[in-house]
Amino acid sequence: MEQIPAPARERLLQLMRILEHTNEETLSSAQIETLTGWSSNTIRKDISYLNVEKDGGIGSSSGYGPAALLPLIKKALGLDRRRRFCIVGLGRLGSAYLDMGAGASAGLDELAEFELAAGFDTNVNRTEILPSTTPLYPAYKMGEVIQRFNIEIALLCVPAASAQAAAEKLVAAGIRGIVNFAPAVLNVPPDIAVRNVYVEDDLRALVVKMGV
Amino acid sequence: MEQIPAPARERLLQLMRILEHTNEETLSSAQIETLTGWSSNTIRKDISYLNVEKDGGIGSSSGYGPAALLPLIKKALGLDRRRRFCIVGLGRLGSAYLDMGAGASAGLDELAEFELAAGFDTNVNRTEILPSTTPLYPAYKMGEVIQRFNIEIALLCVPAASAQAAAEKLVAAGIRGIVNFAPAVLNVPPDIAVRNVYVEDDLRALVVKMGV
Repeated sequence: MEQIPAPARERLLQLMRILEHTNEETLSSAQIETLTGWSSNTIRKDISYLNVEKDGGIGSSSGYGPAALLPLIKKALGLDRRRRFCIVGLGRLGSAYLDMGAGASAGLDELAEFELAAGFDTNVNRTEILPSTTPLYPAYKMGEVIQRFNIEIALLCVPAASAQAAAEKLVAAGIRGIVNFAPAVLNVPPDIAVRNVYVEDDLRALVVKMGV
Repeated sequence: MEQIPAPARERLLQLMRILEHTNEETLSSAQIETLTGWSSNTIRKDISYLNVEKDGGIGSSSGYGPAALLPLIKKALGLDRRRRFCIVGLGRLGSAYLDMGAGASAGLDELAEFELAAGFDTNVNRTEILPSTTPLYPAYKMGEVIQRFNIEIALLCVPAASAQAAAEKLVAAGIRGIVNFAPAVLNVPPDIAVRNVYVEDDLRALVVKMGV
């Protein structure tokens, strides 16, 4: 399959969210343009990456149908299969996410698309004492465990000072993507995806929602 | 000033991020379209909300200059003044954010745009014992403290079962926006902005970056 350019992939993810939350049976290009600002040209081009058959019920003069379009977008974006992830650093933040994974309601382990497979910490006391239904390991086992369980993604929850070293160990272990919660810029090879999570971005987006 | 529609505000926030990270002296509509998929019509319309003078150095045939455009976008989005926020719920997640606030490097209290002004918990042991440079209060003081310090935003870090009740107290106290980390849907009046933070969204965005 043709590799989809990054901006188009990001738009398709946004379109996927819109389709997941709409109650309409079809969305027209014009409706999508009103919600997003994308030109109808851009929308058509993005959807053309999905390699849908014309008249396959996806796009018609009346618009795009979420039921038919969603599975195709998920497949094109690689969101059509469950992926395993791990938590690295079991301090307050890491153990909070572990909690959600172990928690009963709407926690991480109930995510359809992602499976929490392991937690790691350099402090063996933590990995032995923390109550968790997820298996916890000392950090020196990262390489072995990540390969054995085919873990593709890490939530990096270590302090800023340890983040780069931990990222390098993850890369050596074969991880493909890192969600970085540490307030540090990671220096990793270009084929490793990094998503930096800064609470400032959420605060900004909230203010923008609040209006002036 | 004219109220800017929500989709345009979101695009302006994204444009702000692009301008903050570019090394170019000007960005043309065509460059912005390549990055975002927005039609040049949409881009012009969005920028027209900023009420910039023509030929004011903002937009010219050669493009838009970040240095001139950024302050105008910040002002239009309400990001031109510092806002106070608080953390509600000082369990693992809440105290992790408190940590970042108290921490030395690139933590919350170094955010130029946001100031961590208070933490709250129903458990008085926590508010008395947690080490923090941010003042901590028992939850029953929320109304008084939020009004006294003009706190506009709350990071809601309580368990899912307590989230709705805590949100209602925040609304009664006069909060304007909530960043909701609890895996629960909040039912609040329409003039209160809510941003739900789900780690699933970050995992999805990361996979999309990873490519298939």
